[in-house]
Amino acid sequence: MLKKRIVIIGMGFGGIRAARILAGKGHDVVLVDRNNYHLFQPLLYQVATAGLEQESIAHSVRAMARSWPGTHFHLAEVSGVDLAAHEVQTGTGPIPYDYLIIGAGSVTNYFGLESVESHSFDLKELADAETLRNHILTAFERAVIEPDPAGKRALMTFVIVGGGPTGVEFAGALIELVHFVLAKDYPELSTHAARVVLVEATDRLLAAMPEEQSMYTLKKLRGMSVEVLLNARVVDAGPERVILHDGAVIPAHTLFWSAGVKAAPLAAVLEAPHTAGGRIPVEPDLTLPGHPEVYVIGDMAYLEQAGAALPMTAPVAMQMGIYAGRSVLAKENGTPLPPFHYHDKGSMATIGRNAAVASAFGINFRGYLAWLVWLLLHLYYLIGFRNRIVVMLNWVWYYWFHERQVRLITRRDTKHPL
Amino acid sequence: MLKKRIVIIGMGFGGIRAARILAGKGHDVVLVDRNNYHLFQPLLYQVATAGLEQESIAHSVRAMARSWPGTHFHLAEVSGVDLAAHEVQTGTGPIPYDYLIIGAGSVTNYFGLESVESHSFDLKELADAETLRNHILTAFERAVIEPDPAGKRALMTFVIVGGGPTGVEFAGALIELVHFVLAKDYPELSTHAARVVLVEATDRLLAAMPEEQSMYTLKKLRGMSVEVLLNARVVDAGPERVILHDGAVIPAHTLFWSAGVKAAPLAAVLEAPHTAGGRIPVEPDLTLPGHPEVYVIGDMAYLEQAGAALPMTAPVAMQMGIYAGRSVLAKENGTPLPPFHYHDKGSMATIGRNAAVASAFGINFRGYLAWLVWLLLHLYYLIGFRNRIVVMLNWVWYYWFHERQVRLITRRDTKHPL
Repeated sequence: MLKKRIVIIGMGFGGIRAARILAGKGHDVVLVDRNNYHLFQPLLYQVATAGLEQESIAHSVRAMARSWPGTHFHLAEVSGVDLAAHEVQTGTGPIPYDYLIIGAGSVTNYFGLESVESHSFDLKELADAETLRNHILTAFERAVIEPDPAGKRALMTFVIVGGGPTGVEFAGALIELVHFVLAKDYPELSTHAARVVLVEATDRLLAAMPEEQSMYTLKKLRGMSVEVLLNARVVDAGPERVILHDGAVIPAHTLFWSAGVKAAPLAAVLEAPHTAGGRIPVEPDLTLPGHPEVYVIGDMAYLEQAGAALPMTAPVAMQMGIYAGRSVLAKENGTPLPPFHYHDKGSMATIGRNAAVASAFGINFRGYLAWLVWLLLHLYYLIGFRNRIVVMLNWVWYYWFHERQVRLITRRDTKHPL
Repeated sequence: MLKKRIVIIGMGFGGIRAARILAGKGHDVVLVDRNNYHLFQPLLYQVATAGLEQESIAHSVRAMARSWPGTHFHLAEVSGVDLAAHEVQTGTGPIPYDYLIIGAGSVTNYFGLESVESHSFDLKELADAETLRNHILTAFERAVIEPDPAGKRALMTFVIVGGGPTGVEFAGALIELVHFVLAKDYPELSTHAARVVLVEATDRLLAAMPEEQSMYTLKKLRGMSVEVLLNARVVDAGPERVILHDGAVIPAHTLFWSAGVKAAPLAAVLEAPHTAGGRIPVEPDLTLPGHPEVYVIGDMAYLEQAGAALPMTAPVAMQMGIYAGRSVLAKENGTPLPPFHYHDKGSMATIGRNAAVASAFGINFRGYLAWLVWLLLHLYYLIGFRNRIVVMLNWVWYYWFHERQVRLITRRDTKHPL
């Protein structure tokens, strides 16, 4: 067997699984990312709501690479790929490849709403979560000293756009932060007057799940005092207000956008067709059309299955990463794999304390059991044993004491400084 | 008893102890800090060397204030004090007081060495530690791709100025990070070629401790491959070099300064005499001369005892904070306290794994026992039970597995970006 050089761009859910498959198989595997860590994005919202320290949801790539023989990590921002020359272009020089697996993920899609983009927070990177946490806590500090009642209320109003899992989980975690923790921290504020408004463009939350789950989620969130607006869209925003499609104005100091994602900018510079969301249509074996040596996985890849596009989720990325790794090995052995097939194991979202929804294998379950399964699965998929312990510790702490310890304003880099 | 308004500036070691004494005594106690947390500064160097997450050494002031009846927290930067009007001036308006306790701490003193200041890192704030950690890890990432051997060496050379506890502890933690952790992370680098140079102006390390402890520390650090230069001073610095008093040039990408502190800038705007280090000479009861209602505590206060100035350390600040709180209560009861007297319980410094020096009650002990005492005392003084567990977990992890989990480059805000 000839030793091949396999470059993997992006150490997300797909990339690290491809790396794990390819390690120790006699090939030279180069791991490239602009961060030196794998980030567990699904828990970013808990960092933003003061439930977890940022370090507990990230894990050093070099620490992982130690146990992956034949892999090397290269910290770099990828600017492009020269498909003809078989070279990845980075800020620190080109990296040649025999096989390339691209999984650079996605970025937030504001659909051209510039005023919304410039006044919104989102959660894609680790620093985003710390920035948003600092912003939320600073808003309450400002509310304490704000003499104008309307201004005070706006400082304590949080508009969340998008009723998908991120919007639902963030809304639930935020209202619990306010009611269980900040209410005790700020006796001088009427924290019951704080508003968490969840704006969803369609007629139901968690559209990817069965309708009964959406109904439960809606009822649960409203029971927790989250104001859920269905069939509503945010069309404009200013520093202290959010404007809906019908002209309604919500005076709000914080706008959080989770209403869309699009492929990472790297997708745009690849010489290939693109979908509306910037994704790259791939062959049934996840390769770039005309380039059987280049795989595109995860959020960047566009592939239909049973007439529908595969969703931009972690489970899809993980399965694609594993497939891409195996496919490279299979090609080298001269026995190509059958086409990629995504096995949908279900989906879930946590709403709050003791409450989550999960749908798997045709079964829908809700409430405490779903919440427990959610906790265990997230701990399981979190990379790093120490991280699991720290996260579990924080969760137990919160569950028992209604305390979130990380309510620290660590930087003064919020969009609206004090 | 008349209800008095007592304002405490600074939630450091002194401020929180004064607050604890004054809480629940029928007075109105206002706590002011520009951060919303108490920072355990003595462990900043462990955050900088990837041993601890930053959140584990900080604790929310509002969380503490919950259990202190009659206290209120005010997040603000103090710009001055109007001693005649009895008002603290802040960025968000004046705060009147009947009694004022000022403990704003200290900042790094570069003694006018501008080139050194602009190329140095220091450790006073939480963000400093994260910035320094990111810088150190980025230096190793750059060393991987640096083709020039001299440049590679400079990237892996760290000059630490000041042989006090901070310099010694940081040097030990850094060389252990390199030898135990990064050596495994960077198989492509000759990490044994990394240099940690500790520069001390006098003829011994840990000058505040007995000479035998200094000798042990020197021997131990040298045994760990730290290059200790005694009777040496750093006089100039550039982006990739450090220049000593004798003209010697050390090519180094990182310069860390712990060779001096001076009183926080707030001291300078107080209408009072100042010492060379900007400290404010106080009366034997820690009050400002002519202002029996204003206390100055901790690093900002200058007081001699047995012919020598009290050191700018956490134990002094803690005892001063307790005294100031008690003194206010005593004055209100009409029974003033005897003058402040600092009880020196000893001092200690950790050098590395299983090695520390401690001197207390005339007894000097070293090695494993001192190290264990150091660990326990630091856990004891750390605020927040959850913090103690997380810190202990990290220490156990490091001790057993030689792993420091927080080796994440979380921001790209280093002084010398990649």
